[in-house]
Amino acid sequence: MSSQNSNGVLPSTQALLAEVERGFSASTQRLCDFLRIPSVSTDPKFDAETRRCADWLVAELTALGFKAEAAKTIGQPMVVAHHPGVGPDAAKRPRILYYGHYDVQPADPLELWNSPPFEPVLVDGPRGKRVVARGAVDDKGQVMGIVEALRAWHATAGGPPCPVTLMIEGEEESGSKSLEPFMHEAKARLAADVCVVSDTGMWDIATPAITTRLRGLVYMEVTVHGPTRDLHSGMYGGAVPNPINVLSKIISELHDGERRVTIPGFYDGVGELPAQTKAQWESLGFNDGEFLGDIGLKEGFGERGRSTLERTWSRPTCDVNGIFGGYTGKGAKTVIAAHATAKISFRLVSKQDPAKIAKAFEQFVNSRLPAGCRAEFESHGANSAIEVSESSRFLAAADRGLRAVFGKAPLLIGTGGSIPAVGSIQRILGMDSLLVGFGLDDDCVHSPNEKFELECYRNAIRSHAAMLGEFAQMTR
Amino acid sequence: MSSQNSNGVLPSTQALLAEVERGFSASTQRLCDFLRIPSVSTDPKFDAETRRCADWLVAELTALGFKAEAAKTIGQPMVVAHHPGVGPDAAKRPRILYYGHYDVQPADPLELWNSPPFEPVLVDGPRGKRVVARGAVDDKGQVMGIVEALRAWHATAGGPPCPVTLMIEGEEESGSKSLEPFMHEAKARLAADVCVVSDTGMWDIATPAITTRLRGLVYMEVTVHGPTRDLHSGMYGGAVPNPINVLSKIISELHDGERRVTIPGFYDGVGELPAQTKAQWESLGFNDGEFLGDIGLKEGFGERGRSTLERTWSRPTCDVNGIFGGYTGKGAKTVIAAHATAKISFRLVSKQDPAKIAKAFEQFVNSRLPAGCRAEFESHGANSAIEVSESSRFLAAADRGLRAVFGKAPLLIGTGGSIPAVGSIQRILGMDSLLVGFGLDDDCVHSPNEKFELECYRNAIRSHAAMLGEFAQMTR
Repeated sequence: MSSQNSNGVLPSTQALLAEVERGFSASTQRLCDFLRIPSVSTDPKFDAETRRCADWLVAELTALGFKAEAAKTIGQPMVVAHHPGVGPDAAKRPRILYYGHYDVQPADPLELWNSPPFEPVLVDGPRGKRVVARGAVDDKGQVMGIVEALRAWHATAGGPPCPVTLMIEGEEESGSKSLEPFMHEAKARLAADVCVVSDTGMWDIATPAITTRLRGLVYMEVTVHGPTRDLHSGMYGGAVPNPINVLSKIISELHDGERRVTIPGFYDGVGELPAQTKAQWESLGFNDGEFLGDIGLKEGFGERGRSTLERTWSRPTCDVNGIFGGYTGKGAKTVIAAHATAKISFRLVSKQDPAKIAKAFEQFVNSRLPAGCRAEFESHGANSAIEVSESSRFLAAADRGLRAVFGKAPLLIGTGGSIPAVGSIQRILGMDSLLVGFGLDDDCVHSPNEKFELECYRNAIRSHAAMLGEFAQMTR
Repeated sequence: MSSQNSNGVLPSTQALLAEVERGFSASTQRLCDFLRIPSVSTDPKFDAETRRCADWLVAELTALGFKAEAAKTIGQPMVVAHHPGVGPDAAKRPRILYYGHYDVQPADPLELWNSPPFEPVLVDGPRGKRVVARGAVDDKGQVMGIVEALRAWHATAGGPPCPVTLMIEGEEESGSKSLEPFMHEAKARLAADVCVVSDTGMWDIATPAITTRLRGLVYMEVTVHGPTRDLHSGMYGGAVPNPINVLSKIISELHDGERRVTIPGFYDGVGELPAQTKAQWESLGFNDGEFLGDIGLKEGFGERGRSTLERTWSRPTCDVNGIFGGYTGKGAKTVIAAHATAKISFRLVSKQDPAKIAKAFEQFVNSRLPAGCRAEFESHGANSAIEVSESSRFLAAADRGLRAVFGKAPLLIGTGGSIPAVGSIQRILGMDSLLVGFGLDDDCVHSPNEKFELECYRNAIRSHAAMLGEFAQMTR
């Protein structure tokens, strides 16, 4: 726990947590202000709002003594902020880089929201109040967990005890196209000893978690073209290739009867889980019934002979994320569409090679097209799986901080999701990430009525404040 | 050819055709007046115009001595008009019912039109002038072929030689919901010996055709539901059923490797083509290369071992007309959708039973759903295939009339499309239809820049005038 050290007085964890508590009502208001700005990065019609969201964050960080800016990129602005740390010893302590994102997913389908997605509301739930809005947990709530922890440090110690840099991007939900170019360019400004990322989940509301495995992602859009124009299905039906039928058939062939992906070479580099890890996962007491029951399912559906945890944490997958073609309005239109499109993504594990898989997928599709059809491909991202060392000293420090807040040890877990930035940070900035997040499985991430429990938000702020105190005990 | 008969003097075909020629410029102006009224039946915002269009037609027919009205229905008005025929012998001659429709398809996408869809223009084409407007051929141009033929009879003989009734509906393009109720109610007024329908095509611009086969249609919408809400594909991917993948797999299983439909019982009632018909079709000299080349294809794609004509005229099919699910916007969203929808239609032939096939399709889908998924169905129509006897005396009379106009025999053809009214007329009014139409394959029916060649329009008027003369030679 942070307390006095030889070079100056650091506030006690107790004092920090008391300050978090004192300011929590204002912290919640600030989160709502942040959520009110519809920073949907994928849709250009929200560009002005996305820009405004970056500026809002810059203003907040400037007020906390940071040198902050919304840096220009080839895409959405990058919020980057730096504080050298307070006091003469700060320079000897580890430099911390925080990564998060201020952009959000599109809110559609709007009609399924119980309240407007960009008008945050505090709603009573079984676990106290929750804030409901697009971005509540992914990732604005988690970013504010960091910002408000820094505010507690500002109030109690005049600023953070270590050199702190924030890199909060505005394109995480739309492919992060500026992230790598920006890191290359700003490498010196971003130098640090560890990157703390808060965009993952807890084990449950009372149990913190550190995520050590992330799946990778290859996201492809494929359009199958057939006849040069839409046709009357009566005049042509049965005699010409129908791009929707062709696309459906190709999608159906992506899995075999064991629900394994059939693309040649797909499983190259996929390792089996070490016995020790498998034993640890089994000891977690993961509740399949609760995980699936929450989304209306009685049983899982996936690769034969694998548990739900294996399926989501350690096995690669293929899912269609969107499909469209032909007439999609009300009623009937007897048309054979000229083209049909699917958005298809693959989650990767271990050493699977994203570029190789993207190429193998294109070949898979092309080899199945009947005469008269052709396919067009667009990549929406390709990144490898990540495995973080479980023996790092930063992980040990985070463990101590989380114990102080929760009164119990965090679990080391995997996640089925992907955070491409973690791989880029490792590759370009040469540092490992420490993934400590505060979401829950039922937060409706990317879905209508996304929410963040206020208890999770409070613990996110408390945890970041305490973890920073632990980092301050270390030497660089 | 019509000429004198024992009961009175009928005008010669020559005199009728001369009258058509004399009035053709005015006939074209009237067609343009008709086309200028945007009678888009599916869209309530055009209701006043659709009503005005019915009134316009009533006025034209009244001027030709018909007792005409725009009859009230549960939907758009039904134009119904009657003339007892001229002279004492008319009552002994066959009663002719003409069926057509005055409503049109929506004009969108507007930006693809070269001129406004409801401002008809005469444009020079490779085969002379053509009129370009929504409804030019489907079906206003063809309806005016009948009206202007009746005008020629009015000018030369004071009216039609037979009892003539017209039933011109205003909902053909939007489901014909009033047609059957109206026929039940007006059965006595609509009594006739044959129904002449002009809503089909010619073989080519110089060769008339009588359509004797129409495919039926079963149109189903199916929605596959999986998880109760949209999910993050990283957190859940690989462990839960994905409705888009499930739907794609079911669609892919609708056809086997021979491109035959796999639904149990689907081919019940499908007869093989009589050798004579097959020989006649082979003698037609259908140009596969031109038919497919026009839509950018080098070869056909369909049931193995069948020609393109068989595939479109005499074989049943299954096509997906629309599909949608998950994220369909620009870019990427890593979502597993809660549901996915497809609009799937079947073209039917011979004695296939639409109700049985709709039910078998539902069973086919339900039996393939993994645990945790369910399907919801909506029917958008079900009607049987039609085969018109090729040995009817009315067909023989039409054949004589068309020979007189074109100097060659009409071909007996099929069409892949469906005209549900023909089945309803047979069932409710108890009469066969005679399908003689004047459209060409490249008329852009239901598409932007719909057109009708003036040569086809002229021949439509001439043909209806001559055919009516032939009917007048017959006894009831």
